[in-house]
Amino acid sequence: MAYRRLNEESCLSYIRSIGIFPDDAHLSCREVGDGNINLVFIIRNESNAKSVVVKQALPYVRCVGESWPLDLGRTIREGRALEIQNRLAPGLVPELFRVDPDLALIVMEDLSHLGVMRPGMIQMRRYPLFADQISTLMANLGFFTSDLYMDPVEKKALVEEFINPELCKITEDLIFTDPYYDCERNNVNPALRPYLEQVFWQKEALRLEAAKFKYKFLTEAQSLVHGDLHTGSIFASSAQTKAFDPEFAYYGPTAFDPGSLIGNFFINYFSWDGKDNSPEDVGNYRSYLLESVNDIYTLFERKFVENWQRCAKDIIAGVPGYRDFYMRNLLVDTLGFAGMIMIRRMHGLAHNIDVDGIADLGRRSEVQVRILEMGERLIMNRAGFQSIRDVTELIRQGTS
Amino acid sequence: MAYRRLNEESCLSYIRSIGIFPDDAHLSCREVGDGNINLVFIIRNESNAKSVVVKQALPYVRCVGESWPLDLGRTIREGRALEIQNRLAPGLVPELFRVDPDLALIVMEDLSHLGVMRPGMIQMRRYPLFADQISTLMANLGFFTSDLYMDPVEKKALVEEFINPELCKITEDLIFTDPYYDCERNNVNPALRPYLEQVFWQKEALRLEAAKFKYKFLTEAQSLVHGDLHTGSIFASSAQTKAFDPEFAYYGPTAFDPGSLIGNFFINYFSWDGKDNSPEDVGNYRSYLLESVNDIYTLFERKFVENWQRCAKDIIAGVPGYRDFYMRNLLVDTLGFAGMIMIRRMHGLAHNIDVDGIADLGRRSEVQVRILEMGERLIMNRAGFQSIRDVTELIRQGTS
Repeated sequence: MAYRRLNEESCLSYIRSIGIFPDDAHLSCREVGDGNINLVFIIRNESNAKSVVVKQALPYVRCVGESWPLDLGRTIREGRALEIQNRLAPGLVPELFRVDPDLALIVMEDLSHLGVMRPGMIQMRRYPLFADQISTLMANLGFFTSDLYMDPVEKKALVEEFINPELCKITEDLIFTDPYYDCERNNVNPALRPYLEQVFWQKEALRLEAAKFKYKFLTEAQSLVHGDLHTGSIFASSAQTKAFDPEFAYYGPTAFDPGSLIGNFFINYFSWDGKDNSPEDVGNYRSYLLESVNDIYTLFERKFVENWQRCAKDIIAGVPGYRDFYMRNLLVDTLGFAGMIMIRRMHGLAHNIDVDGIADLGRRSEVQVRILEMGERLIMNRAGFQSIRDVTELIRQGTS
Repeated sequence: MAYRRLNEESCLSYIRSIGIFPDDAHLSCREVGDGNINLVFIIRNESNAKSVVVKQALPYVRCVGESWPLDLGRTIREGRALEIQNRLAPGLVPELFRVDPDLALIVMEDLSHLGVMRPGMIQMRRYPLFADQISTLMANLGFFTSDLYMDPVEKKALVEEFINPELCKITEDLIFTDPYYDCERNNVNPALRPYLEQVFWQKEALRLEAAKFKYKFLTEAQSLVHGDLHTGSIFASSAQTKAFDPEFAYYGPTAFDPGSLIGNFFINYFSWDGKDNSPEDVGNYRSYLLESVNDIYTLFERKFVENWQRCAKDIIAGVPGYRDFYMRNLLVDTLGFAGMIMIRRMHGLAHNIDVDGIADLGRRSEVQVRILEMGERLIMNRAGFQSIRDVTELIRQGTS
């Protein structure tokens, strides 16, 4: 069947036709997508409240129209990523029910009963199981799709399947290029502009390190990464963690996912300087955030090493010193990527509501400068940190 | 038309059918392949001595038979590599006349009037234009297929096209893995075995560096590389250079090609210790070899930088310091790969006749130990060399 753009009615007919729900079920459907490149429908069985999500790729960017075409194959790739993530980290991503290449859609578990982490964290919500759960996803994805574990021929077939030029280009531009100069695409708080012009965009040493990370992102096919693992692409509750939207998935540096995630935690950490919560609440929540970062990274490392000890197949995995070298690089790269994520969210095209929720632009820019400076510090000094605790300790001391 | 294995007769009919030669030409055909995985035919027009080569992939390894199947697509990939090399470095690789995916064959320029460099170098032949010519091929291939120049979306399409699992696996095993332990596949001179067992295979620090280079080879999609650029895969005369057999081509570290080539020059350099030529001849030829290495690498660097200055497109190419960083890494990686190539040719599966031509096994093993030690030194100290001249000077001093 040829591609056609679904609406609520035709989506409902489609879902009936594939037999996911009983024939006589009373179903409802509504489009809930707020994105620019996909349609998202929730189909609910009104008799028992069971529901699924249909995500259909649009062949263009919605707000721009047909002048900016996009490859429909990305949804199939997202489906494959979900399939692999489900296998390697069951329960930590949406369950996948169907991939339809013709309609460029996937049908998956509806998780809208869980909240997205970012708004939760803006309300100081805590997620006691998050560090343990997300570290399992990252450690399993990072290890079991790497050359340490996979047959090299099968790994290369997966590399090929996940070549993802269009979405990688978005990351290459928006994260690794634009924020380091006065690019039109940047979205600059006017109160921040003087700092960018007089200070930040003059930092040649920082631009050089950014260029090295862009090179890494462009060339290093280390493992399958989610590719966009921020707090806005994770559903969470006090009991559950579900990373979603892996349409940016590709073979890249393993550290990109933990780096993205930790960068987002640090952004939230600094955002409280621009808000009016009680110092006690802020202090407590910040302690929680830093402990979370410590736990996320320490558990990620521990589980990665456990996978290595139990399952590594490449003979070089047993060479004395190689695991330490590999794990050390993961930490150093994670800190670099975290710094780059902090920077891109301040004045690149896409921001975080954590900081953009600070209405006063002057106050917002003070927070932005602090985050830019800390991002820079993580990037420039990344090789000087011995553990994630060194980093969180530095941040704690700078703000206590 | 389905794949069928050609013989001299059917190859001739095939060539007649595609109209490369005049209809009434008197053609002859003979199979000259000495390899295990391809058939190679030379078809000659006896009236004017014009000739072409047909290279057909076998679907299995010839000496083993059908039990070791091989992907026929590799010949198409080789054809594509030749097409790209012809475009980026015209005149430095065989001209390509036809690619036939069904028969898994390519038709190309016959270069058998030129000699292969390896036997030439064993007879102390000199190639006065070689450094200039091969450096053009390496600098253009390395630059114009990289992210420095290519549109990132188009580059990824090329990465995909050159995913080459089977042939990469041969390199991964034979170069980066087997030589570092007592692997069954190794081909060990009995007189060398005691050194390997008591000394070489005990070198844990070296194995660690080898593991890092294997990681690089497995993951770093920097540019399209020839993938097997040794003196046995180059036709040369005093006027011409033609690199052939790019069936190992894939997206990998740019330094792999210059490293392979320079490693082969150094092997030839040390091989004279096991032969009975006059000291004067050996001294002169060695000076020529070291000057060649200096020229190959210096010209490669200069042309790469010129390409960069004239043609770089990625905005990060202009970041101060990035080009120095990139060029520095190319040198360091080249030395590391050169060292690994020297080592693999001593006791890995495939040797060089340069050294295996030394009939006395004891004398051969002395040369092998010297090459193993120099290979190790290049690998372990690679970051300490400031230029290629530092390396050739070290070698000159150690043997004068």
